Amino acid sequence: LRTGIPEVIYGESKSAAQIVAIAKTFLQQQALFLATRIDPEKANHIRKSCPEITYHTRARMLSCNLQEPDPTRVHGNILILCAGTSDIPVAEEAKITAQALGNPVSTHYDAGVAGLHRLFSQQEAITAASVIIVVAGMEGALPSVVSGICSCPVVAVPTSIGYGTSFGGITALLGMLNSCAPGLAVVNIDNGFGAACHASAINRKNRPESLQDSGSTV
Amino acid sequence: LRTGIPEVIYGESKSAAQIVAIAKTFLQQQALFLATRIDPEKANHIRKSCPEITYHTRARMLSCNLQEPDPTRVHGNILILCAGTSDIPVAEEAKITAQALGNPVSTHYDAGVAGLHRLFSQQEAITAASVIIVVAGMEGALPSVVSGICSCPVVAVPTSIGYGTSFGGITALLGMLNSCAPGLAVVNIDNGFGAACHASAINRKNRPESLQDSGSTV
Amino acid sequence: LRTGIPEVIYGESKSAAQIVAIAKTFLQQQALFLATRIDPEKANHIRKSCPEITYHTRARMLSCNLQEPDPTRVHGNILILCAGTSDIPVAEEAKITAQALGNPVSTHYDAGVAGLHRLFSQQEAITAASVIIVVAGMEGALPSVVSGICSCPVVAVPTSIGYGTSFGGITALLGMLNSCAPGLAVVNIDNGFGAACHASAINRKNRPESLQDSGSTV
Amino acid sequence: LRTGIPEVIYGESKSAAQIVAIAKTFLQQQALFLATRIDPEKANHIRKSCPEITYHTRARMLSCNLQEPDPTRVHGNILILCAGTSDIPVAEEAKITAQALGNPVSTHYDAGVAGLHRLFSQQEAITAASVIIVVAGMEGALPSVVSGICSCPVVAVPTSIGYGTSFGGITALLGMLNSCAPGLAVVNIDNGFGAACHASAINRKNRPESLQDSGSTV
Amino acid sequence: LRTGIPEVIYGESKSAAQIVAIAKTFLQQQALFLATRIDPEKANHIRKSCPEITYHTRARMLSCNLQEPDPTRVHGNILILCAGTSDIPVAEEAKITAQALGNPVSTHYDAGVAGLHRLFSQQEAITAASVIIVVAGMEGALPSVVSGICSCPVVAVPTSIGYGTSFGGITALLGMLNSCAPGLAVVNIDNGFGAACHASAINRKNRPESLQDSGSTV
Amino acid sequence: LRTGIPEVIYGESKSAAQIVAIAKTFLQQQALFLATRIDPEKANHIRKSCPEITYHTRARMLSCNLQEPDPTRVHGNILILCAGTSDIPVAEEAKITAQALGNPVSTHYDAGVAGLHRLFSQQEAITAASVIIVVAGMEGALPSVVSGICSCPVVAVPTSIGYGTSFGGITALLGMLNSCAPGLAVVNIDNGFGAACHASAINRKNRPESLQDSGSTV
Amino acid sequence: LRTGIPEVIYGESKSAAQIVAIAKTFLQQQALFLATRIDPEKANHIRKSCPEITYHTRARMLSCNLQEPDPTRVHGNILILCAGTSDIPVAEEAKITAQALGNPVSTHYDAGVAGLHRLFSQQEAITAASVIIVVAGMEGALPSVVSGICSCPVVAVPTSIGYGTSFGGITALLGMLNSCAPGLAVVNIDNGFGAACHASAINRKNRPESLQDSGSTV
Amino acid sequence: LRTGIPEVIYGESKSAAQIVAIAKTFLQQQALFLATRIDPEKANHIRKSCPEITYHTRARMLSCNLQEPDPTRVHGNILILCAGTSDIPVAEEAKITAQALGNPVSTHYDAGVAGLHRLFSQQEAITAASVIIVVAGMEGALPSVVSGICSCPVVAVPTSIGYGTSFGGITALLGMLNSCAPGLAVVNIDNGFGAACHASAINRKNRPESLQDSGSTV
Ligand SMILES: Nc1ncnc2c1ncn2[C@@H]1O[C@H](COP(=O)(O)O)[C@@H](O)[C@H]1O
Ligand SMILES: Nc1ncnc2c1ncn2[C@@H]1O[C@H](COP(=O)(O)O)[C@@H](O)[C@H]1O
Ligand SMILES: Nc1ncnc2c1ncn2[C@@H]1O[C@H](COP(=O)(O)O)[C@@H](O)[C@H]1O
Ligand SMILES: Nc1ncnc2c1ncn2[C@@H]1O[C@H](COP(=O)(O)O)[C@@H](O)[C@H]1O
Ligand SMILES: [Mg+2]
Ligand SMILES: [Mg+2]
Ligand SMILES: [Mg+2]
Ligand SMILES: [Mg+2]
Ligand SMILES: [Mg+2]
Ligand SMILES: [Mg+2]
Ligand SMILES: [Mg+2]
Ligand SMILES: [Mg+2]
Repeated sequence: LRTGIPEVIYGESKSAAQIVAIAKTFLQQQALFLATRIDPEKANHIRKSCPEITYHTRARMLSCNLQEPDPTRVHGNILILCAGTSDIPVAEEAKITAQALGNPVSTHYDAGVAGLHRLFSQQEAITAASVIIVVAGMEGALPSVVSGICSCPVVAVPTSIGYGTSFGGITALLGMLNSCAPGLAVVNIDNGFGAACHASAINRKNRPESLQDSGSTV
Repeated sequence: LRTGIPEVIYGESKSAAQIVAIAKTFLQQQALFLATRIDPEKANHIRKSCPEITYHTRARMLSCNLQEPDPTRVHGNILILCAGTSDIPVAEEAKITAQALGNPVSTHYDAGVAGLHRLFSQQEAITAASVIIVVAGMEGALPSVVSGICSCPVVAVPTSIGYGTSFGGITALLGMLNSCAPGLAVVNIDNGFGAACHASAINRKNRPESLQDSGSTV
Repeated sequence: LRTGIPEVIYGESKSAAQIVAIAKTFLQQQALFLATRIDPEKANHIRKSCPEITYHTRARMLSCNLQEPDPTRVHGNILILCAGTSDIPVAEEAKITAQALGNPVSTHYDAGVAGLHRLFSQQEAITAASVIIVVAGMEGALPSVVSGICSCPVVAVPTSIGYGTSFGGITALLGMLNSCAPGLAVVNIDNGFGAACHASAINRKNRPESLQDSGSTV
Repeated sequence: LRTGIPEVIYGESKSAAQIVAIAKTFLQQQALFLATRIDPEKANHIRKSCPEITYHTRARMLSCNLQEPDPTRVHGNILILCAGTSDIPVAEEAKITAQALGNPVSTHYDAGVAGLHRLFSQQEAITAASVIIVVAGMEGALPSVVSGICSCPVVAVPTSIGYGTSFGGITALLGMLNSCAPGLAVVNIDNGFGAACHASAINRKNRPESLQDSGSTV
Repeated sequence: LRTGIPEVIYGESKSAAQIVAIAKTFLQQQALFLATRIDPEKANHIRKSCPEITYHTRARMLSCNLQEPDPTRVHGNILILCAGTSDIPVAEEAKITAQALGNPVSTHYDAGVAGLHRLFSQQEAITAASVIIVVAGMEGALPSVVSGICSCPVVAVPTSIGYGTSFGGITALLGMLNSCAPGLAVVNIDNGFGAACHASAINRKNRPESLQDSGSTV
Repeated sequence: LRTGIPEVIYGESKSAAQIVAIAKTFLQQQALFLATRIDPEKANHIRKSCPEITYHTRARMLSCNLQEPDPTRVHGNILILCAGTSDIPVAEEAKITAQALGNPVSTHYDAGVAGLHRLFSQQEAITAASVIIVVAGMEGALPSVVSGICSCPVVAVPTSIGYGTSFGGITALLGMLNSCAPGLAVVNIDNGFGAACHASAINRKNRPESLQDSGSTV
Repeated sequence: LRTGIPEVIYGESKSAAQIVAIAKTFLQQQALFLATRIDPEKANHIRKSCPEITYHTRARMLSCNLQEPDPTRVHGNILILCAGTSDIPVAEEAKITAQALGNPVSTHYDAGVAGLHRLFSQQEAITAASVIIVVAGMEGALPSVVSGICSCPVVAVPTSIGYGTSFGGITALLGMLNSCAPGLAVVNIDNGFGAACHASAINRKNRPESLQDSGSTV
Repeated sequence: LRTGIPEVIYGESKSAAQIVAIAKTFLQQQALFLATRIDPEKANHIRKSCPEITYHTRARMLSCNLQEPDPTRVHGNILILCAGTSDIPVAEEAKITAQALGNPVSTHYDAGVAGLHRLFSQQEAITAASVIIVVAGMEGALPSVVSGICSCPVVAVPTSIGYGTSFGGITALLGMLNSCAPGLAVVNIDNGFGAACHASAINRKNRPESLQDSGSTV
């Protein structure tokens, strides 16, 4: 694991049969198996062949051989925030991924910009976090506000929620890239997985052993 | 004045000579003269021929025959908010226009989303306003936050301030159109003039006389 | 109700089960329940669990506990105009919302730009209105023409009706943002709900009590 | 002249020297010389070498050897309409081109959508025209309205006039392509030249002789 | 029929029931009934209620009370060209519309730019035509080539045929708007109907009677 | 400094006079003064009034009262990579900012994707870094490759370098957002400043004192 | 075969019946029959009428009368590379097409930019190839890297694989057009067919006979 | 020269001083020096320091140490076609580059789609060419037509010539990517250099020696 991130299966453009084939290889090696963007029907098919695999309904992910987080290897807690019902699948994809990569995670899924008291009631958790992932659709303003009340790194994830000129998440993405809060970093639309990978790299205390032990030829 | 809004000159694509010619007609009739998007150099040329015209440097507007606001004809105060130095020209275009249309106007030009205390310190003025115009560039999140703490109508003006993916104001515009705060209405990028016209129509107590007196054929 | 607008459920990205759960909370408190973007099938499912809820077919909305408009609290009538059959769902979303927010509403759904006599025959209703909402797809020119023959505030709603280069409403939106009629304000594509919220804030005579009585801390 | 349209020089990307060289060839043959998109400074340079060339300031065109229109070869009059000062250069490019191609042309340059009485006062000229060219920037709604009150073919020319979301004429172009008035045909942004060529082909009574006389091999 | 074009039903966003209701009104008055963008299933439903209506499968149109073309009222023939199988539905929409508006029409549906001999074999028909409608998808180059070998007006219709960067017809549209052949006029993507309306207005010998007889108030 | 990032002046849309006025306030308080996007001419003007200010030519930044990095407060080294001459200004903006925020920084400015040996020769520095900022224009592929050979967090900065379809940096931005290397986080085009703020938040060992000491009311 | 490329059927917008009709003509003449973009269901229908036709499942192509490659007519081997499962259909379309045009083809479908060792392990095949086709989705960086380690011509094919800002392949296309590796040539998104045609023209040793024998009139 | 293409300087974003510094290194080694996108003024400055450098005015390139083409190392002639004056700079950039890479080059710069006889008069040169580079702006249709009358590989270069919806070359690029002529390959807008690199790789008879002699480690 030269980069500290295990191989994760992108499920969208693969058939159930293709995923079962890949999963079997991982399961035989008792390695961490993780797959994203799996709809419930495909999950059902796969779990018929591989009943040891868990389906995370809200995250639309499959997993197997998840390990317990080891607190001595991370700086602290990853906090995941979003505004409401519609953004939860992306937030959950970030959560399952971050946990699978060994991080303790806490979440708060009811923090909208148009009612800031709901956000401010979380100030303590915000101050305590090691990294914050903020998931937001429509205008995508939540990460800017969060960035203004914390000092840890903030990773923003635009979602495709909205209609008309939300353009499937482009508006949220653009809002985040142009945040007046300095230091926001952004990932692709709906990419909870990628945000968790970045947050996890931030939160990791020591580099992966393989990198420290050897010169790691390409 | 069938629509309640006098003719206002769009200065951008007109030469100084063309504007002087138009202005002379207005001045002879002692009518309200208002022109937008006039750069300082063009203003200088025009004021050489028509010294009775005032140049509003920050608003980049020309005016003549401005009348005193008549408080009996409006519901209340128009409040204009923006985040900082760069958005001021657009905010000032809104202010001069709203005043010229007979409205009392107050302004607060230091209210950024990444430091919300500066906005919250204006809560009293916000609660007192009859209409609020919010001017914002970059990600354009300020109007959403303002809408969440007031009950009067809010008009949002995106500005072309920013770089890279701010796309000359498109990002701010899209953010405003997709606000999670219900009821925001939006005008074109940098269109302080249009926002003031809309706010003024909202604030006007009685309809213009011509419309009330007659059937007003087209 | 700090902002004067009750919470309204955005139905598009929610399952029938999720909406039933939310609705039950509202119904228990006998509060106004309103949900937008509900297709007929989803409405059927929901009404099986909550038969007291009404489905507004053309508006694609659900409601319960609607209250009678109180004429002493508004300035006047909201007029809703559109050009034809295809724009009616968006116009109806605006109508039901505006009524639920306490406004008397009148409508005229047959006013196209290419046959202006149909619009001009409504001059009396136009002159009498307190606010006008104009709904238009394709090239979106109707609001400009309406603005030219009235003095009250006009709110324009682009719709996603059209094909080819109508780009799902972008062309109509752009036309409205660039109207040569000063003072048009615009909302997101197909956002009848948002237009009604803005129009209602304009039409409301007194501010909501909570705001007038207290300083309303955030 | 197989296509009935003489070669016209596109001046934008050519130096004064290049244009003088081309012009000299035309002048020697006493052929019609026409060049578009020539700024005043370039025109000055060119006219120093070729004083017999005329510069049409408003149209930004050069011409030489223009011939008198021959009314027996055309169906009637080409009418050119636009809304105001800023669109005039494009309207004039159409006018000079249409005249050079042998058509009688009339113009009316003060017909805006937000004040339709100015358009309706031209109903007689509109009814009399053989073809109408309508030039419009910003939202580009004028051609739709004109189409609704005439029966002859209408050619729409979007202009790059406007700011913000007018996107250099794209908004006007899209409005015209999505007109609810059936039968509008559109040319490129600012392409008065092309509109005149199309209108002229419509207005031409007989096909060019070369085409009638021979089989015209490619 | 002030504009010379009868009202035509846009079928895309209407239910079979809505179209039957409209059709019944036309049929009772024995007026020309024409509807575009009707898929076969919807057509079946409608024809069950109105068996006198004809369904034009390739054009996806419905018609009733079509009249014979009257050659004394038109200048000549409208020629419709396209490159192949995929563009035929749009070409047929133009054909049925043009015929319904009283024009003799001829077609040639196998003229691709990459094999120009197929186009050149039609030179005689091209030279004889009064107007030419050229329908093309993908890169949309055919109208430019046709324009180069004829002198009559050419109307170009981009189609949504293609994939990837054809962007549902935008590429073809842009190609046509930027044609190096002067005088091409363009309509919306897949708008065979609009092209036929424009071509028909060009081909009409006398103005509609109503316009000639009276002053035609708006 | 609630967020751990001092206020930094965005110089692009401010006059020399405005910046001098702001700088004077900072200098009087002997606070860190930092300004971005200052062209040489503007820098000259400002340094005439404030000679104690330093101009960083390649970074196009102004600074004063920079403090020595304190190694006990950071995790390690920030490494900044780019491919060549044209990206250096953005890389230098990141460098000066990161240093001003207290971080040791190393740079390598000659690592292009089309000649990977130049990148691989830096493997040691890459493995040693605490955070890596990768600056790239044109196709923006460098961050993907870097991410594949390191385990620390990587921040990608697209630049506006390129022509034609590089679209002022959009192509590079899109490439980075869609990287097949999981965990890349991205900032706005040319935003070296923002990348350094994010990297600095990652590299900071302890939270800013103000946040640790107090509850930090908003 | 004036251009050296036989007519190939574009299957996407044709019905099974239409394709059967075309196929029958080819089969009667025992000519090479090739069709692209055929989904499995349509293939089934067609093969019921024409059982001698082969369906290439992964390539989604139909073929009949394929001929053996003749090594004396080509320069060498065409190598096709892609990064993974999702790009294989496009790579296979290129492979079947290239073989049908007479070329020996080798493939390697597991070469991703984020793990370059998988690419470098193919250096020998890369050095031996006569032309290389590189198929890539998402950020599209693979062709740049390949170009940097070979000297033969490289043809890049963007695929529509990805989500969010991959925009159905636009991001990959833009990355390839802006490659820092000089000499990459690009085809349309998902156009494996076109890439193979270009590669085949490169690899062909002698021109098609018809062109050499005669002057080939158009 | 592992890839067979020497390093070429991209001049656009470099100062004269930077280019002189780079040039001096090349000149000392008597290596081929080539720089693109150099305006005349910058060229003058550079040639003052390095008078042995040649400036190719039309191509806007600098060169030194150009070598004679060696016909034994190439397959044949590269033909470069474009439509007119405005595209010549891009065509010349391709020509100088192709020659510098050792290829015999012929050109024909007067071949427009709207007058195809000018193209067909070049059939002999077209049939004789080994590779053809076609340069075109506006609608970009020329490469499709050329591809239809030749069998060698065709490389298409879109140029930024045009106005309005030509969008700085995007329209030409899109036309080329969607050509109905199979096998066209495309490079970035105005990238004559890249087209020549691709064409040269096609035309090269033997691989560069370094690649044949050694295993070429990365
Ligand atoms: N059709 C609609 N368009 C825009 N916003 C809406 C719409 N319907 C409801 N909303 C707003 O969406 C929010 C509710 O979102 P949610 O919590 O996802 O149901 C509320 O603030 C509503 O005011
Ligand atoms: N303003 C214009 N817009 C579009 N095409 C033009 C314009 N002026 C001239 N042309 C056409 O451009 C061609 C001349 O291009 P050129 O050879 O570059 O001068 C001729 O076919 C003209 O018909
Ligand atoms: N180059 C830059 N890019 C993005 N944000 C910046 C840049 N320089 C300064 N800022 C931010 O812009 C804000 C200052 O804006 P202003 O008040 O207009 O000077 C501060 O929050 C800075 O963090
Ligand atoms: N997948 C494809 N992508 C692009 N062009 C194709 C494809 N398949 C076939 N073609 C081309 O499309 C043309 C056939 O189109 P059609 O006559 O509609 O079958 C031929 O010129 C083929 O070379
Ligand atoms: Mg912060
Ligand atoms: Mg509010
Ligand atoms: Mg009005
Ligand atoms: Mg008409
Ligand atoms: Mg012609
Ligand atoms: Mg990594
Ligand atoms: Mg190479
Ligand atoms: Mg060919």
